[in-house]
Amino acid sequence: MDVISVIRTKRDRGRLSDEQIDWVIDAYTRGVVADEQMSALAMAVLLNGMDRAEIARWTAAMINSGERMDFSRLARPTADKHSTGGVGDKITLPLAPVVAACGAAVPQLSGRGLGHTGGTLDKLESIPGWRASLSNEEMFGVLDDVGAVICAAGDGLAPADKKLYALRDVTGTVESIPLIASSIMSKKIAEGTGALVLDVKVGSGAFMKSLDDARELATTMVGLGTDHGVRTVALLTDMSVPLGLTAGNALEVRESLEVLAGGGPPDVVELTVALAREMLDAAGLRDADPAKALADGSAMDVWRRMVIAQGGDPEAELPVAREKHVLVAPESGTLTALDAYAVGVAAWRLGAGRARKEDAVQAGAGVELHAKPGDAVVAGQPLLTLHTDTPEKFGYAEEALTGAFTVTEGASSAFAGTPIVLDRIS
Amino acid sequence: MDVISVIRTKRDRGRLSDEQIDWVIDAYTRGVVADEQMSALAMAVLLNGMDRAEIARWTAAMINSGERMDFSRLARPTADKHSTGGVGDKITLPLAPVVAACGAAVPQLSGRGLGHTGGTLDKLESIPGWRASLSNEEMFGVLDDVGAVICAAGDGLAPADKKLYALRDVTGTVESIPLIASSIMSKKIAEGTGALVLDVKVGSGAFMKSLDDARELATTMVGLGTDHGVRTVALLTDMSVPLGLTAGNALEVRESLEVLAGGGPPDVVELTVALAREMLDAAGLRDADPAKALADGSAMDVWRRMVIAQGGDPEAELPVAREKHVLVAPESGTLTALDAYAVGVAAWRLGAGRARKEDAVQAGAGVELHAKPGDAVVAGQPLLTLHTDTPEKFGYAEEALTGAFTVTEGASSAFAGTPIVLDRIS
Repeated sequence: MDVISVIRTKRDRGRLSDEQIDWVIDAYTRGVVADEQMSALAMAVLLNGMDRAEIARWTAAMINSGERMDFSRLARPTADKHSTGGVGDKITLPLAPVVAACGAAVPQLSGRGLGHTGGTLDKLESIPGWRASLSNEEMFGVLDDVGAVICAAGDGLAPADKKLYALRDVTGTVESIPLIASSIMSKKIAEGTGALVLDVKVGSGAFMKSLDDARELATTMVGLGTDHGVRTVALLTDMSVPLGLTAGNALEVRESLEVLAGGGPPDVVELTVALAREMLDAAGLRDADPAKALADGSAMDVWRRMVIAQGGDPEAELPVAREKHVLVAPESGTLTALDAYAVGVAAWRLGAGRARKEDAVQAGAGVELHAKPGDAVVAGQPLLTLHTDTPEKFGYAEEALTGAFTVTEGASSAFAGTPIVLDRIS
Repeated sequence: MDVISVIRTKRDRGRLSDEQIDWVIDAYTRGVVADEQMSALAMAVLLNGMDRAEIARWTAAMINSGERMDFSRLARPTADKHSTGGVGDKITLPLAPVVAACGAAVPQLSGRGLGHTGGTLDKLESIPGWRASLSNEEMFGVLDDVGAVICAAGDGLAPADKKLYALRDVTGTVESIPLIASSIMSKKIAEGTGALVLDVKVGSGAFMKSLDDARELATTMVGLGTDHGVRTVALLTDMSVPLGLTAGNALEVRESLEVLAGGGPPDVVELTVALAREMLDAAGLRDADPAKALADGSAMDVWRRMVIAQGGDPEAELPVAREKHVLVAPESGTLTALDAYAVGVAAWRLGAGRARKEDAVQAGAGVELHAKPGDAVVAGQPLLTLHTDTPEKFGYAEEALTGAFTVTEGASSAFAGTPIVLDRIS
């Protein structure tokens, strides 16, 4: 087997054989296939595609590149969630405690933000003392004690994916449904969860801009999970508008605490409950009531124990950015558009995100929304507050928001009842 | 400017702007753009193409990555030739002396073989003492004294191409007309020749298998040369059958000496004279007679002086392989097929070529033909002789020749007058 013949097969629109896939993933993991060879193959896959059998084999090869975790010793059934990433998507923070409070175990391996979408680990790291990196034993211990753990994936889990993901990020080969699906699912299957709910985002703030692409990605991932014995369901959810009223690390933790306290923005609550129901259903806990777990404080109780178990202080003050800058409504009427991508880029430019993996993020930076589409606004009222420790970036962030919101004269009922969940694939 | 936006532009079937091309070629040369980024871009170019303006800019950027040579001080007009590579293509060896004997100066920068096609420098290095690497001053001196020089391109000439060529070779991104054309022409334009004749090979033994692809490559290159003020002509020539009766390093030098002595296989003589006439025409020497220069020994005289000027001994015995193995005609009749690619691969397997740039070649290895298509053969007569220092490779080489030749009962006139030159593009 040689790598050039593998690259040529896909370049010339052929099917990769099982042997070619197994060999190239293993050889890349061991460093026998070089980065410049794998990136050429990734570009050929992006442009010429892979069929369902190729994607399944590619995913299996990435799983087999490392260890598989096993939670069968736990007393509870396991359920995990994965979001394809959006703006203001802090759902994992209230969701994991809610589902644990309802009786499932949630082994949530999360990532960091890159580009305009935030990362769950970055958000949680704004809690003083909280640690993202746990050994497998520590992770298992927190899960067994508390019922939920949110931490970084260990190096032993799908190392081929870890290497390929970093490579795709710098070679313009991220936006490929076969590569996205196999990357997500190899980690989740290797992680060993029994049930998995996928939150596939659609809209300007998501990687998938169209419902068709999102449906194709969701169908591919549900197929991969099912083939590997993981009960997998996907919800397609709207990401044309930011989720909730905040985008930024500590800002989103604060909003998640409101939800865990029984309040919080309705869209965040709605999506948290919808995903919790799917996870609990898939875990076989059909009678559980996630809305009640939010209302009665049991989810908040799990949250506090989870934060403490990972070294964090749930009572500590969350970081606040040094400077704020308010953007006001230019006229009176109804806010009829607020673009998720623009808000995500603005938050990123303010310091909430990173341009390169090795960059640090600002805990306090981000964007706070004072209105959502459908809300009536009065000329001069605050619409957005920008937060940052580096106020010289205000202008750069404002640039990203040019044309991002629209105020239309008069009232509008166009937004009443706009659903968050657009479709369900199982 | 960032490399991911450049990659995405081409990945998404866009046109690269002048600024993007200038930046990416310069940044790659300086190591700011990494190999894995350039190979992803090369794959996107291979699959999505470049238009004529993009190819022109890409070529100019590669020329500008290094120095440009200047032969305007020479008393003679300069003319160079480039072949896209074939099996048994030793034409440069007699051609450069012939053209020099007719009054032009031939600054022939050549390469080494890789894969099934041989390299001019490898062939000449079978002459004891001969050196391929000359300083720019030495090269100019030999050219001025002798009228012809065949040597390796210096590191200062189109360094972007040198780096990209090596990268394409290991990433399955060789077979792209825009990348092949810009690679060849950037070196030839930077070299500073006033006239250039391109020998674009077509057929099983060539990179271009079809006449349409070869014509597109030739047209692209003639356009690039003309745009840069180089008088450029291309001949499309047949490479379905090996050129002459030898493929291998010393074997081809020996055959070239026969041609320089006024003999040699008719196809080699025909192509040498045809290319010489084009070079002399393009250099403005329309009355020169290359056939006479072969017949009267003046080309041989230039050859000897050229070999001596580069440290070689034209009287020395050429290396001979330690072992020979003869393949005989399976039946009597007419040889109706002898596949160039198969002969090239066999010669390569016998040790005449290299699999990786750092490999050494065997001077004596190769394949000798005792008949060409159209010749009558008798059952049991020698058809091919395989030469090697590593006789354990005979079986492996014979494998490559399975089905490569056909003997048909009776006489055949199908090959009478098969032309070598298939088309001319200027």
